[in-house]
Amino acid sequence: MNVPDRNTLKQTLKQRRQNLAEKFSDKALFWSGCAPSRNFPANTFPFRASSHFLYFAELPLKNAAIELDNGKLTLFMDNPSPESILWGGQKPSRDKIAEEIGADAAYPVSDLANYNASAATIAVPNPITYQQQCEYLQREIPEPSQAQGKDLDLIQAVIGLRLSHDESAIAQIRQAAGVSMEAHQTGMKATAPGKTEAEIRAAMESVIMAHNQTCAYGSIVTVHGEVLHNEAYHHTLQSGELVLADVGAESPGGWVSDITRTWPVNGQFSATQRELYDLVLAAHDACIEAVAPGVEYQDIHWKAAAVITEGLVELGILQGNVSDLLANDAHALFFPHGVGHLLGLDVHDMEDLGDLAGYAPGRQRSRRFGLGNLRLDRALQIGMTVTIEPGFYQVPTILNDPETREQYQNMINWERLAQFSDVRGIRIEDDVLVTGDGAEVLTSSLPCECKTIEEIVNARQI
Amino acid sequence: MNVPDRNTLKQTLKQRRQNLAEKFSDKALFWSGCAPSRNFPANTFPFRASSHFLYFAELPLKNAAIELDNGKLTLFMDNPSPESILWGGQKPSRDKIAEEIGADAAYPVSDLANYNASAATIAVPNPITYQQQCEYLQREIPEPSQAQGKDLDLIQAVIGLRLSHDESAIAQIRQAAGVSMEAHQTGMKATAPGKTEAEIRAAMESVIMAHNQTCAYGSIVTVHGEVLHNEAYHHTLQSGELVLADVGAESPGGWVSDITRTWPVNGQFSATQRELYDLVLAAHDACIEAVAPGVEYQDIHWKAAAVITEGLVELGILQGNVSDLLANDAHALFFPHGVGHLLGLDVHDMEDLGDLAGYAPGRQRSRRFGLGNLRLDRALQIGMTVTIEPGFYQVPTILNDPETREQYQNMINWERLAQFSDVRGIRIEDDVLVTGDGAEVLTSSLPCECKTIEEIVNARQI
Repeated sequence: MNVPDRNTLKQTLKQRRQNLAEKFSDKALFWSGCAPSRNFPANTFPFRASSHFLYFAELPLKNAAIELDNGKLTLFMDNPSPESILWGGQKPSRDKIAEEIGADAAYPVSDLANYNASAATIAVPNPITYQQQCEYLQREIPEPSQAQGKDLDLIQAVIGLRLSHDESAIAQIRQAAGVSMEAHQTGMKATAPGKTEAEIRAAMESVIMAHNQTCAYGSIVTVHGEVLHNEAYHHTLQSGELVLADVGAESPGGWVSDITRTWPVNGQFSATQRELYDLVLAAHDACIEAVAPGVEYQDIHWKAAAVITEGLVELGILQGNVSDLLANDAHALFFPHGVGHLLGLDVHDMEDLGDLAGYAPGRQRSRRFGLGNLRLDRALQIGMTVTIEPGFYQVPTILNDPETREQYQNMINWERLAQFSDVRGIRIEDDVLVTGDGAEVLTSSLPCECKTIEEIVNARQI
Repeated sequence: MNVPDRNTLKQTLKQRRQNLAEKFSDKALFWSGCAPSRNFPANTFPFRASSHFLYFAELPLKNAAIELDNGKLTLFMDNPSPESILWGGQKPSRDKIAEEIGADAAYPVSDLANYNASAATIAVPNPITYQQQCEYLQREIPEPSQAQGKDLDLIQAVIGLRLSHDESAIAQIRQAAGVSMEAHQTGMKATAPGKTEAEIRAAMESVIMAHNQTCAYGSIVTVHGEVLHNEAYHHTLQSGELVLADVGAESPGGWVSDITRTWPVNGQFSATQRELYDLVLAAHDACIEAVAPGVEYQDIHWKAAAVITEGLVELGILQGNVSDLLANDAHALFFPHGVGHLLGLDVHDMEDLGDLAGYAPGRQRSRRFGLGNLRLDRALQIGMTVTIEPGFYQVPTILNDPETREQYQNMINWERLAQFSDVRGIRIEDDVLVTGDGAEVLTSSLPCECKTIEEIVNARQI
């Protein structure tokens, strides 16, 4: 695997520290966190270090902290105990780790008790670590969305850095995206009527695991794509249904990808499925086409909404003037989420900071149906990585709501819509890097992207 | 899958409540817990309900609580919100769930705020839920190992129930064990020189996932079996090495299995590997032979120690009188852990209670090397499920420790030991139900148990 070599790692981390120092002149402390317990203390979930920590330390060190002070890096971590070596094997010492990440000094964690510098920090979303942060800094650390003063300054500085990815980050996102694409291709091949969602999920996640990567988020693998974040896998696949799979890998350094594909259980799209699939794909392609530095991401969201609305009018599902339909959020009945989000060390990058990263200063979430679910409202900039993921869904709680049916009764041809009942949910999602030339799709590393109807039908038959 | 039908479930839960009422006459409140966040609030680890809650409610309900009051069951949970239905799909209502588990009454969670009964409870090892427990009961809930008064009474009553499993529990452990055995057989077949540990792990866990079960604990799949709880999977398998795999599935209701097998990468055991493998297997079989109601589990631990010590003397690795060697814990140099533990809703059942469940009242952990790692020191009783998992390891931090080498210089033939350098770690682990007749191995549901050298060599070649 293309793991960055040690000198590159050290150089990358040094550059990130210098970039931070330019934006933030105070001391900053970042905690890595610990693995939460599953059902009893010794049986934990897999450890995932805090993303802000990973950004500046890259290594997933448990129970560690780093201080950044004008480019100077101090590491706080304990040497492995004899007990931990017996159960967990030999691990590198504090000094070895300090050398590897280019730290200027290294101390045991307990030295944080004597740490009386008034450092800024960012609350870790792990209650045990959060408690330690408050204790060591002897103050109530605010929730990131409530931060003020130097904590807020630090958050804004970190956002400034993490919005645009450096080469090392992009290399790792690319690595995760390649593995994810392989997982999707494997999922397509494993699909057949009579199999269960759980079996397809297993085929896909085992690819990620075999590459020694992890899943960046809970996989969605379902014939009920209309459940946007479906967490169940118990259905048996029936001929005529579509499988929607939203599965993404995470690199060892924590950089993630986020990919959705939708494919037919029996290998062939029905005529109605083809119409709607191609419509979602057209929206997807139009959005990627529109990606460029300086472009407002919300405009890309509206681009998807417009293409979908136009298409649904052409299909006779929506009726009326496209502008009026958009103004009435008629598209959101079938596309109730945003067109995508930031991607980086988190699948919704920096969502631990509430909307501070996703929304440009002064902006806030709309209260409009659909638009209120948009997670990103900023101008795109070079090095930013975003998802593009339009979709079409028939969500019963939306479409069967009496108020909705009344409000939209003249805009929707319900009889026509009923002809498309073999489409519960379609989403097509790729990870896109903003470049000087426009956009690069990071999720196209396989010879075939398994995205057009023809490619998918081929992939299913391989 | 053999999921209990609704009437059986209701009947089982009613019986468990009645059993509790016989041992505990006060009110008891159990919380299910919530899914901890991974890197930001919306990106959580998979939800795992608290085991005590599962025991009395069976269903993995998020953010719910139940009150048990002399056999009467009250459910506290919220109906799904419109937002949660959009993202997570339609879920059963509170009343539907109440009907399913046979609750006598059901209220929203907020009603716990008016809950002024002085109920006993058990602290959940999830800091967010723990906080809720303290707030709703308006007192500092003690850590289970520090519990007193009615909380301790409740803990002892629950231990009394959970030590011996009912039919429904045993059926689900059996179900998990069957899936786990299939995973091990798949792992054996997938093994070949040049593959990575990660690939074998992926093959094994995908079997568990395909059955829509989860892993009961972090899988160990490694050629470095001497690292007792190895969490890494990056080694490439070399001909001549042994793979040690400790992988167990968990049923949808939370009942678990815990199985270890050790097999050769190239399909054949070397002469030295055969000697030590058969020795560990002999210890394993002798222990299972000894399992019966009334037998002290610590005696079974010593049975393993004795068989291993005798064997190592025969092999010329240990030298001297077997009793003296045992008295000096010489066996623990190669078998530093306990022979097993309780198994049920947790892989170390009820370890959230410290040693309250594992150790009979009045007993406590030994300070002796090896014996101090024994997790269970009780007389066996019908319905109890325990693991039997002797092992042989060459742990560098133990065997290279200068003090150890000096202390044991006359007991170990280091030159002879060096001839066994192709054995880093062997463990053979099964799940055993204590029955009136003695013992039933629950992990023998496959036609072949993949346990003897012959069976393993065959399984590798299938």
